[in-house]
Amino acid sequence: MRALTGLAALLAAGSAAAQPPTVPPGMQWLYGSGEGGATGIQAYHAFRDYVVAAARHRPRNSVVLADGATLAAPRFVPCGRRPLAVVLDVDETALQNLGYEYDDATHPGRPYDQERWNAWERSGANQVLPIPGAVTALGAIRRAGVTVIFNSNRLAAHAETNEAALNGAGLGPARHGSTLWLQGDAAPGSAKDPRRAAISQRYCVIAMAGDQLGDFSDLFNARDLAVPERRRAATGGRIAALWGNGWFILANPVYGTGLRGTIDDVFPADRRWPASAPDARH
Amino acid sequence: MRALTGLAALLAAGSAAAQPPTVPPGMQWLYGSGEGGATGIQAYHAFRDYVVAAARHRPRNSVVLADGATLAAPRFVPCGRRPLAVVLDVDETALQNLGYEYDDATHPGRPYDQERWNAWERSGANQVLPIPGAVTALGAIRRAGVTVIFNSNRLAAHAETNEAALNGAGLGPARHGSTLWLQGDAAPGSAKDPRRAAISQRYCVIAMAGDQLGDFSDLFNARDLAVPERRRAATGGRIAALWGNGWFILANPVYGTGLRGTIDDVFPADRRWPASAPDARH
Repeated sequence: MRALTGLAALLAAGSAAAQPPTVPPGMQWLYGSGEGGATGIQAYHAFRDYVVAAARHRPRNSVVLADGATLAAPRFVPCGRRPLAVVLDVDETALQNLGYEYDDATHPGRPYDQERWNAWERSGANQVLPIPGAVTALGAIRRAGVTVIFNSNRLAAHAETNEAALNGAGLGPARHGSTLWLQGDAAPGSAKDPRRAAISQRYCVIAMAGDQLGDFSDLFNARDLAVPERRRAATGGRIAALWGNGWFILANPVYGTGLRGTIDDVFPADRRWPASAPDARH
Repeated sequence: MRALTGLAALLAAGSAAAQPPTVPPGMQWLYGSGEGGATGIQAYHAFRDYVVAAARHRPRNSVVLADGATLAAPRFVPCGRRPLAVVLDVDETALQNLGYEYDDATHPGRPYDQERWNAWERSGANQVLPIPGAVTALGAIRRAGVTVIFNSNRLAAHAETNEAALNGAGLGPARHGSTLWLQGDAAPGSAKDPRRAAISQRYCVIAMAGDQLGDFSDLFNARDLAVPERRRAATGGRIAALWGNGWFILANPVYGTGLRGTIDDVFPADRRWPASAPDARH
């Protein structure tokens, strides 16, 4: 009824050193499965339909949180008469980083190395593919008169090769300084709020897309936000209503800030099984 | 810029026997992260909006493939004047199996055991939660006059406890023989097409939801469909247009038929990196 779990398969493979590397289950799902591909298409269909409809009625407010807003009491930047835009993340939102993840999958156990990622930004522009559904959706959005802007934590120092990755995959035009914002623009560091604020001075942002909560607001990356609180913040209150309704999330179980949490963080104490006397079941 | 990959974390944890069990990254993402929760809400918002709109204009055809249809040339069951319904899978589509996955996460390396899953069906009804977004969406769908029908590979022999899991989570009414179809109904085995055909004799199925491609058509489970072909079948041709448009997929990187494939299956040969002379890069 259910297949061998990914964990069991992984550990079984890990103990057989002569075998070729096993693909981690998250990569199998995201890059290899019909299910993973379908989630991309579904998210981009929803994104396209929402944006094309919103462009017709010109919303009063953008979907970028205003300065001083909180997750419990979100307020949004007013649009004024600025032209319409959407803001997207790049990695695992618009691009599948197949080359980089291939290298990772074939070197199991190797720790993350920022220099290797930097080398990927500089030399991997041709080893990517678009997320399924992205190219046609972004085309339809542009035809509706809406500017497509990428906001990525790739480095401004690699602007040329980062543009090439997007444009080569058919996702452009991506031009640094107008439709491509990178780490180093507006402010140093990986926070994306300063770039969202700068983009919001020029555009009315009617929708955003990303695979990490930080692609929507840096408030989700507050250091004191424990794993269960962060999930509640994203799935409860007034934030919940935004998913598929201005904010569009792409599934990424391969990497990112969502991939953490202990047993106690992930499994509520009142939802554990066997509930009692586990030995009596056999 | 990117966190330690799940695989590296997993292998590091596996070699430190005194540590408490590490939660597999797919479970962290699906059950613990705001990102995973948001994908559920987004999918259910799209499902609800589609169904409420479709119920108004009464489509001529259902979204269930007709007998003799192929993935390359899909044809659909005509609706006639039958009442409207939606058909959903249960596990990781409507229910989060938190208790079962907690047990799995705390026993790393243990192989899958069908008897343990059967025990879970019989005794785990209280150790579940609904997928975020499911309860309110199914309520809105029922208020629009559309019957909600579950089609699961849980066993008909456990009908009572399987009903209790759904009804206790607020997802019901689920009643075996009318709104809950289980393995053993209509035909033996895990194929869901016979149950979809039986449901289609009573209802016009205007939308389906699932986390596995088999929740939409058994054609995706053909034995001769290699991993890359299966992905192409789900993301290309006329099938691609169905995602978010009658067929609704829920992300599940924890288990299922999508979690397979070798390096060669998952990573296209022309999308590998470093592209050549890897030693020269250092």
